[in-house]
Amino acid sequence: MKNSFGTSVIVTLFGESHGPHIGAVLDGMAPGIKIDEEYIKIRMAARAARSDISTSRKEPDEVIFASGVKDGVTTGTPICLLIQNTNTRSGDYQKTEELARPGHADYTAQCKYHGFQDKSGGGHFSGRITAALTAAGAICELALEQKGIYIGTHISKCAGVADREFDNIIDDIKAIPSKPFPVLDDNVAEKIREKILDAKSKLDSVGGVLETAVTGIEPGVGEPWFDTVESQLSHALFAIPAIKGVEFGAGFAVADMMGSEDNDSPENENGKIIHTTNNAGGINGGITNGMPIIFRCAVKPTPSIAQAQQTINMITGENSEIEIHGRHDPAIVHRAAPVVSAMTAIVICDMLAQRYGTDYLKA
Amino acid sequence: MKNSFGTSVIVTLFGESHGPHIGAVLDGMAPGIKIDEEYIKIRMAARAARSDISTSRKEPDEVIFASGVKDGVTTGTPICLLIQNTNTRSGDYQKTEELARPGHADYTAQCKYHGFQDKSGGGHFSGRITAALTAAGAICELALEQKGIYIGTHISKCAGVADREFDNIIDDIKAIPSKPFPVLDDNVAEKIREKILDAKSKLDSVGGVLETAVTGIEPGVGEPWFDTVESQLSHALFAIPAIKGVEFGAGFAVADMMGSEDNDSPENENGKIIHTTNNAGGINGGITNGMPIIFRCAVKPTPSIAQAQQTINMITGENSEIEIHGRHDPAIVHRAAPVVSAMTAIVICDMLAQRYGTDYLKA
Amino acid sequence: MKNSFGTSVIVTLFGESHGPHIGAVLDGMAPGIKIDEEYIKIRMAARAARSDISTSRKEPDEVIFASGVKDGVTTGTPICLLIQNTNTRSGDYQKTEELARPGHADYTAQCKYHGFQDKSGGGHFSGRITAALTAAGAICELALEQKGIYIGTHISKCAGVADREFDNIIDDIKAIPSKPFPVLDDNVAEKIREKILDAKSKLDSVGGVLETAVTGIEPGVGEPWFDTVESQLSHALFAIPAIKGVEFGAGFAVADMMGSEDNDSPENENGKIIHTTNNAGGINGGITNGMPIIFRCAVKPTPSIAQAQQTINMITGENSEIEIHGRHDPAIVHRAAPVVSAMTAIVICDMLAQRYGTDYLKA
Amino acid sequence: MKNSFGTSVIVTLFGESHGPHIGAVLDGMAPGIKIDEEYIKIRMAARAARSDISTSRKEPDEVIFASGVKDGVTTGTPICLLIQNTNTRSGDYQKTEELARPGHADYTAQCKYHGFQDKSGGGHFSGRITAALTAAGAICELALEQKGIYIGTHISKCAGVADREFDNIIDDIKAIPSKPFPVLDDNVAEKIREKILDAKSKLDSVGGVLETAVTGIEPGVGEPWFDTVESQLSHALFAIPAIKGVEFGAGFAVADMMGSEDNDSPENENGKIIHTTNNAGGINGGITNGMPIIFRCAVKPTPSIAQAQQTINMITGENSEIEIHGRHDPAIVHRAAPVVSAMTAIVICDMLAQRYGTDYLKA
Repeated sequence: MKNSFGTSVIVTLFGESHGPHIGAVLDGMAPGIKIDEEYIKIRMAARAARSDISTSRKEPDEVIFASGVKDGVTTGTPICLLIQNTNTRSGDYQKTEELARPGHADYTAQCKYHGFQDKSGGGHFSGRITAALTAAGAICELALEQKGIYIGTHISKCAGVADREFDNIIDDIKAIPSKPFPVLDDNVAEKIREKILDAKSKLDSVGGVLETAVTGIEPGVGEPWFDTVESQLSHALFAIPAIKGVEFGAGFAVADMMGSEDNDSPENENGKIIHTTNNAGGINGGITNGMPIIFRCAVKPTPSIAQAQQTINMITGENSEIEIHGRHDPAIVHRAAPVVSAMTAIVICDMLAQRYGTDYLKA
Repeated sequence: MKNSFGTSVIVTLFGESHGPHIGAVLDGMAPGIKIDEEYIKIRMAARAARSDISTSRKEPDEVIFASGVKDGVTTGTPICLLIQNTNTRSGDYQKTEELARPGHADYTAQCKYHGFQDKSGGGHFSGRITAALTAAGAICELALEQKGIYIGTHISKCAGVADREFDNIIDDIKAIPSKPFPVLDDNVAEKIREKILDAKSKLDSVGGVLETAVTGIEPGVGEPWFDTVESQLSHALFAIPAIKGVEFGAGFAVADMMGSEDNDSPENENGKIIHTTNNAGGINGGITNGMPIIFRCAVKPTPSIAQAQQTINMITGENSEIEIHGRHDPAIVHRAAPVVSAMTAIVICDMLAQRYGTDYLKA
Repeated sequence: MKNSFGTSVIVTLFGESHGPHIGAVLDGMAPGIKIDEEYIKIRMAARAARSDISTSRKEPDEVIFASGVKDGVTTGTPICLLIQNTNTRSGDYQKTEELARPGHADYTAQCKYHGFQDKSGGGHFSGRITAALTAAGAICELALEQKGIYIGTHISKCAGVADREFDNIIDDIKAIPSKPFPVLDDNVAEKIREKILDAKSKLDSVGGVLETAVTGIEPGVGEPWFDTVESQLSHALFAIPAIKGVEFGAGFAVADMMGSEDNDSPENENGKIIHTTNNAGGINGGITNGMPIIFRCAVKPTPSIAQAQQTINMITGENSEIEIHGRHDPAIVHRAAPVVSAMTAIVICDMLAQRYGTDYLKA
Repeated sequence: MKNSFGTSVIVTLFGESHGPHIGAVLDGMAPGIKIDEEYIKIRMAARAARSDISTSRKEPDEVIFASGVKDGVTTGTPICLLIQNTNTRSGDYQKTEELARPGHADYTAQCKYHGFQDKSGGGHFSGRITAALTAAGAICELALEQKGIYIGTHISKCAGVADREFDNIIDDIKAIPSKPFPVLDDNVAEKIREKILDAKSKLDSVGGVLETAVTGIEPGVGEPWFDTVESQLSHALFAIPAIKGVEFGAGFAVADMMGSEDNDSPENENGKIIHTTNNAGGINGGITNGMPIIFRCAVKPTPSIAQAQQTINMITGENSEIEIHGRHDPAIVHRAAPVVSAMTAIVICDMLAQRYGTDYLKA
């Protein structure tokens, strides 16, 4: 499906970094969902450039609803979101347009699109496209909240500094949007910022790990074998630029666990079936078990760095050297957090609509 | 798509552990591919139970081609593979059928199918279904080999014991099928076996990590944003029972890397564009860059263990204790290796057919 | 999706006329549906060869449930149906295997599969595959009946002889399965038989039109713009061999109607919204309006006829003459009727599951 | 897929008649296709309101390329087309918004979207959305023409007046765009106009039949059983409002034909395989046979008519009377012709990309 994802709730992305608009079509969202524009702005701001640790490119990122919303409420028909590109200093990029930036999609896009791709600012492969994803996901987050389903993403680790794990999950999730930095333990925020600024001063960048929790989902959701909860989420998450790993529950740590440690025991707790541990991340056999869905995404360091790197000239094929100037983030982990939550919200809405029908999320 | 996966080459799985047949339909495979039955047997044997570290359930696992193959060659129409279930000692399981086995899909299947699911031996959620997947994948492996594309999976780590990394990838890949145990360094095989037997003696089980390499793919394959190489592979891989994490290239290690370390530099090496490192695992922006695709899957410890575990009775809802007897593996990491390769081969065939058309793999 | 169709309820077809098995996988059917084997036999018999106006090839057509059914009830997991090919007199066909039979898929299959296709008896393009479709559809018909949804198909016209239209639709539908010939007015049955026998005596064949009614569907089902009720049904119906036209409600007659004639007026009839006419065939804007869904399919004359026809030799490319002997029907209209109902039942189940969720059809 | 259609080339539609924008996303189009804006304007004009037989609503219908086009050439990434709604006299409609217009989707949309749908001017169900489809299809037509594939649609019949059949197909196709009325025999144009004006004077409307030819397609394209050429085309065509029947080749006429008449004989004509007749409409077994693809669509009379009609009030449920004033066409057959060609072009591009890969249509 290329630039679309989903079965019952489907998102389609379009746009280039320096083209006229970027945007998304969100199809299959139930009718009657109130569009809380303030909430969308908060999520857009969390993703947007800000402060000393982000690129200085600042876009107003105003979301225009071209269709599917009437009087501030979803109609049930496709919602087209548009965001105008206003601040497109292509000049910064054009100088080096023939040189493949290491760690970027320049060379692979050249192989795939034979030079016809829009190369300015990464074109269709720019992280800028995630602004549209964030807006589409915010609508899904609003739809889920009215059903008591909450999604939150925090920096689990960045530049070697670890945040605490989720504790009281709903409270932790609700606290994130109002924080300047998406961490659970505010003390680590400053440490991470220092590491990021240190990398910046060295003309370098850092990566990290994001952890996401989804709470409030009934057991029985997911469509094995091939549309398991893990399959659908990972498919969508790996579409986010810079994500190179996804793990659920105990994840890669299972390699060092015994079965007796890893197995979560179901327990009847006053009439409600819970699990006493959650190494499965809320998913058994690809189906939700009623516990919070927990997963982590590895986010690679920003590939755009100002120091000299070896590369090739894509037109001549000659070996070359590149120094990437312009506006770049020394870390994107914190900006990726709302994107991961947004993507997750879209997938959860889709899985619920598959399971319970197109009206399930209706207000 | 529930029990089907793929766009141009599509696999559909069906069957229950103790039902009449398990099987797969492989649709979209190009015509003219020779079915090397000997190779299929080797792959089936690698997945099958064997020796002291595997379950003592032994099935002949003979693959019947119900359709799509004529005179030992693919016709281009859907290939239905059937494997008869001959050794179905349901008795072992029925005693505990009302008790949810911790770490299994018993409770989630109950929630989803309301008790109508076939519960014997895990039913449709049994790892046994991967026998059909292995056979379907073996056909894809044969189709890829004639195009110079090779896939191999080894145990990167099991029970705390690590294998070496891929070195000369094609040679390493070719050596795996004839080995009794899928490791690159034969010295670690015995160490891992000891750990597995130790777990078995403690009525426990161990997990591990599998590492896969795919070599010989042209740059330019993959359909971002949503059908990236990582998206399509992870979607399929997370459908394999017990897999709880998937990472590409440097994977979760990117969290501790600087951009200058992580970025792979393209280089013109005597007219061929290579990358001097492969932290991206052969994929930039979701598209192949011509380097080997490298990924790792976390495999959880076998959930069936013979020691007593807390659980619930799914009918009465009462808290209960379960001891799982019958035939079970103290580790499934080694048996999952050919399954991961098979699944990968199916996805690679699909991505190539999407990119180059339905005849691309034709003999 | 090649040999699969559907979003929430998905059917996959496989098999060749003279291969080991033909079959179908029906995925997404709700758990708890009782498999009425007697009903399946009745539908299989209606499709099967019989009497003097059908081919003398007689297959027992016993349906084997390889998966997805336990104790005679659907489990919710994929149902694999197998039908063994026992009566495969390939000899009849092999003589002419190099000659493209006019009106068949021989030449187009040769172009698509490059000669690797199974050519015996039409291979994968044989009408025989519809036996598996009929069985899969019968399960869907059973699932729908428990929800008060009935589907019936009669011969609207065959060899120039017209049947009456649906009148009391539910009664008409219920009467069809027990009839030797699927017509509403029993007087026309004998007239059609005579025309068919007349064509047979002239070594020729006849075509016809089938009319189908679906009653009991709530308004609001269908997913415009692209998954309208008409779109989904026609997609599936045109997959049935020999169908060359599909029209809904007034269909092609709209070309000669005025808007004032064609428009159906909604009316509140004692609290229930009906439409006073049904030129729309129960569908407005691609969504059900609560009236019966009515459509007609054009079925072409059997292409296999015993008289000499001009053709080409597909291997040498030479112009040639062909006389098709063996067992063939002088008409397939009556045999296609249960196939059309079966296909319709699958699509209706899929649309209901999309709209109301995967449990909607659960017993 | 709701508002998206296609496998390798995918179109997504969004927008409401009186919302801010209507538009389409065309994904999977090969890179390097020159956007001939003049041609797009011609196609938009052919679909647009004009003269005395069309609605007096006139929109500039300027197509804005929000993404996927750089320097007038496709990039290979999703093309988002936007058309602003400038002339939205909702007032005309609001008076009757509670009354279901007979023959429209008002009542079914109410059932599906529970009153949240945008009701002005038919909202998402307005024929206006086909403007975006026409623009997206025009790009596909341009891509096909460079491969020697031509598509044309003429009025086969309107208000009882018949046009001649296709004769020299390529010449006939090429002549259509420059005609004021899409008929092959210019003499019938005036007769049809008279009939339409006559209907208009009676506050009524007329329907018709469109016939389409596609020439230049290689044999071997199509993906049976379920993605036959007929299945894919009819799926898309039935998404166009007002289409109630689709037939290929001889279509419904097969009901009165003998097999010996209907069968098309292949013939080697100087080394090229043709068929001596084309009752199959260029498709056997769901696969192209190299002959022109020929099909016809039944187009119902415009449902909006100014005379009084019985209906219901959707809010109160009361029986009511409606007179539809505002701007409406006494016929839409001629305006639907470019829409059918556009939809066909999209489907043909998709089928070619499925068969030959994503680069096949590349300039």
